[in-house]
Amino acid sequence: MRHLGAIADLSSAEVLQILDRSEEMRSGARSLIGAGRVLTLAFFQASTRTRIGFASAGVRLGFGTVDLLAERYDLRMSSSESLEDTIRVVSAYSDALVLRHPANDAWTTAVTDVSCPIINGGNGNGEHPTQALIDLFAIRRALGRLDGLTVGIVGDIRGSRSAHSLMRALSRLVPKEIRLMGPALRVDTTDASTWCAGVTEQVTVLHHLSLRNLDVIYVAGLPPGTGADRLPDAERERFALTPQCLRQLPDTGVVLCPLPRIDEIALEIDSDSRARFFEQSDDGLWVRMAVLERATSHSKTPARSMRFADVSG
Amino acid sequence: MRHLGAIADLSSAEVLQILDRSEEMRSGARSLIGAGRVLTLAFFQASTRTRIGFASAGVRLGFGTVDLLAERYDLRMSSSESLEDTIRVVSAYSDALVLRHPANDAWTTAVTDVSCPIINGGNGNGEHPTQALIDLFAIRRALGRLDGLTVGIVGDIRGSRSAHSLMRALSRLVPKEIRLMGPALRVDTTDASTWCAGVTEQVTVLHHLSLRNLDVIYVAGLPPGTGADRLPDAERERFALTPQCLRQLPDTGVVLCPLPRIDEIALEIDSDSRARFFEQSDDGLWVRMAVLERATSHSKTPARSMRFADVSG
Amino acid sequence: MRHLGAIADLSSAEVLQILDRSEEMRSGARSLIGAGRVLTLAFFQASTRTRIGFASAGVRLGFGTVDLLAERYDLRMSSSESLEDTIRVVSAYSDALVLRHPANDAWTTAVTDVSCPIINGGNGNGEHPTQALIDLFAIRRALGRLDGLTVGIVGDIRGSRSAHSLMRALSRLVPKEIRLMGPALRVDTTDASTWCAGVTEQVTVLHHLSLRNLDVIYVAGLPPGTGADRLPDAERERFALTPQCLRQLPDTGVVLCPLPRIDEIALEIDSDSRARFFEQSDDGLWVRMAVLERATSHSKTPARSMRFADVSG
Repeated sequence: MRHLGAIADLSSAEVLQILDRSEEMRSGARSLIGAGRVLTLAFFQASTRTRIGFASAGVRLGFGTVDLLAERYDLRMSSSESLEDTIRVVSAYSDALVLRHPANDAWTTAVTDVSCPIINGGNGNGEHPTQALIDLFAIRRALGRLDGLTVGIVGDIRGSRSAHSLMRALSRLVPKEIRLMGPALRVDTTDASTWCAGVTEQVTVLHHLSLRNLDVIYVAGLPPGTGADRLPDAERERFALTPQCLRQLPDTGVVLCPLPRIDEIALEIDSDSRARFFEQSDDGLWVRMAVLERATSHSKTPARSMRFADVSG
Repeated sequence: MRHLGAIADLSSAEVLQILDRSEEMRSGARSLIGAGRVLTLAFFQASTRTRIGFASAGVRLGFGTVDLLAERYDLRMSSSESLEDTIRVVSAYSDALVLRHPANDAWTTAVTDVSCPIINGGNGNGEHPTQALIDLFAIRRALGRLDGLTVGIVGDIRGSRSAHSLMRALSRLVPKEIRLMGPALRVDTTDASTWCAGVTEQVTVLHHLSLRNLDVIYVAGLPPGTGADRLPDAERERFALTPQCLRQLPDTGVVLCPLPRIDEIALEIDSDSRARFFEQSDDGLWVRMAVLERATSHSKTPARSMRFADVSG
Repeated sequence: MRHLGAIADLSSAEVLQILDRSEEMRSGARSLIGAGRVLTLAFFQASTRTRIGFASAGVRLGFGTVDLLAERYDLRMSSSESLEDTIRVVSAYSDALVLRHPANDAWTTAVTDVSCPIINGGNGNGEHPTQALIDLFAIRRALGRLDGLTVGIVGDIRGSRSAHSLMRALSRLVPKEIRLMGPALRVDTTDASTWCAGVTEQVTVLHHLSLRNLDVIYVAGLPPGTGADRLPDAERERFALTPQCLRQLPDTGVVLCPLPRIDEIALEIDSDSRARFFEQSDDGLWVRMAVLERATSHSKTPARSMRFADVSG
């Protein structure tokens, strides 16, 4: 089964195949491979872009989408059904399933015994591999290449699953520099060791914001946090993108962000031609279609038994 | 982009075109123009008829529907994504989007920078234009005409967006009389000036219920309200339709209501042949199909690239 | 209209027709009879299998599914719309509707005045007829026959709507023995009279667990309950299936369960070849497709008016 749980599940060639197919999707090449097939969205954590994006990608490929409405499960008593049982049962009704869950180990638990391909839509502060594919697609569209880049990532590096998957992906692509920037409570060299294995020599960790020489500045988001872990407002503001600090960014550099942005990117930046996060978000549709097509290309629902009802009256 | 935010967005000719097309939809003339296309339902406020009605209309035209499940957003902290960002992003994944929001200015905010047609499913106590089209369709079906009518509207005239859009629509149709009825806290002559511009001479405001000579009595709903604004039960009851007060209504008059009705219309009235609110509700399906077809007739998703998968095995 | 509210709504021949058609569905024989048609899921009570199962069954037949998102209604004030009005209105937009509701009498109320076939997805502690059809399908697949069986049902016999519908169905099938097992607070001979009319001679009631000679042990679930009705943990444990007590079950016997299971079936049993509850759950898809096809075979949406848009560009 073609699960997609983490960037490590894909070879570099497969990553490029998905990006190429996304480009074809963007050009309008697609067929309704999903007619009469089920895409289940099992989101145990709130989501706008990923859930709606996959639902839309599914519809454009002809899938019928089914929503687990999983938010209700969060509030259930401890006596609820196990995640393993729920996903096992639901996967049997589905041709593909996108899972998001607040627990890091939910992914491993969920795929134990399933009967359809599962796509990880974010597991705790683990990975978010389809977001990384969307990020790579945006980088390649903006810059025309993926290797030899100087990429800055700013925000909660330790807590951001989008940042994690992107670091994993970039580490394979012969980066010139990966510059990790955030408060000391949110990033240090151990994060580089964990997520940028093999290219730690190319990783810089900064506790301030510097956009000099960057090809890409990726705004991963910086939630304030709670309790002892809470960041003072002033500390968060030091890492927010303002029109002023954007002057450091080369003319050829681009600003990307998985969104949502709360206050990490000033609204005035939206109209800067280097701001590409809405295009990045929009193009996410094509990437999700390519991911979905790949996952279901060996679908258990036999296409040959699908017949449209005789409607000739 | 063919947004529909208010009755003023439609010319009188366009209103009639939509009603005519609704009649054709009712007769079974339709094609699956929505196959592989996305209709997004972004309801930030509870809804039964409008959301389910548009979803069903979408399905009957072949659309796949995607639900924003927006009720969760109401409970979010102030640090959530802006409505503008959310709708901008989601609209890029959609071929049409129906928006309902508790804030009056949400409509203007939401359509600032979107990439698909947006249909207003109700904004605060502003407008609800598709309900007014449904109301006009019901009136024309029941009476055979739309002009020269004596129409009574009873309830919370000031707070009802359905009443507002209907008043706007009726004001264009050379009414004989528009009779606004409700408690003094819920309607006065300023409402006539606001919503019946151009025909204020034809508007009567009453603080009691009178069905005499009416072609249509439209029950807009009269929620009790809260705090200083709260209506005593006895005051609400004075404006409820009972079998007794219905004796005033001419035999050719009809009772309409956007529903839900809580206690504004006595259950005994359901079996009166002049009660047409369930037919009105049922026929709303055809009107929503016509509205949806109109909005997406210049859809960005190219029909020519839609191909059904080869299923010949 | 072909409603399905209870097992009594089906003749024995109809039950067998549905099981035979389910078998055909399982073999891949199906057509997209639902294209451009609406299946509405009106669940006023939480559900995983039944809601997702019917949604998936609908998609596989080509239906578009619409979710009432009814969980929100539970929290509404008493001044909300009546269930009767809601279902009446929504049924007019639908070609079939599956209803689940916590109140026993909701079914009778809901079908009073509707314009599409309604399928009972569980009413209070009344019936759950589609689950019983799924159970019969699983029994026939596992044992090759439905008559002359010795079937044990363990759990909250009085409170389980799945158990009720299964008892009703089994009572028609010339059972050799129906063995009802549970705490004294959850089952006694009055339950046999109520649900096994005509075969009470074949019913045994036990207040302990005995799997001897059983062809089927059906684990109906045993929630702890609350207040005076609450069961001590030790009492619940006496009726849980463990590997040890499973030694009593003949080699040819099978373990079935409508799921979810909380702790009523030990996890070690999953790998026992007699455990068939996941197959039972998986095959539920085909049964729901057969039920849905039967309900809509005289659909009001005319198939002949369904035309795919000309996409030849």
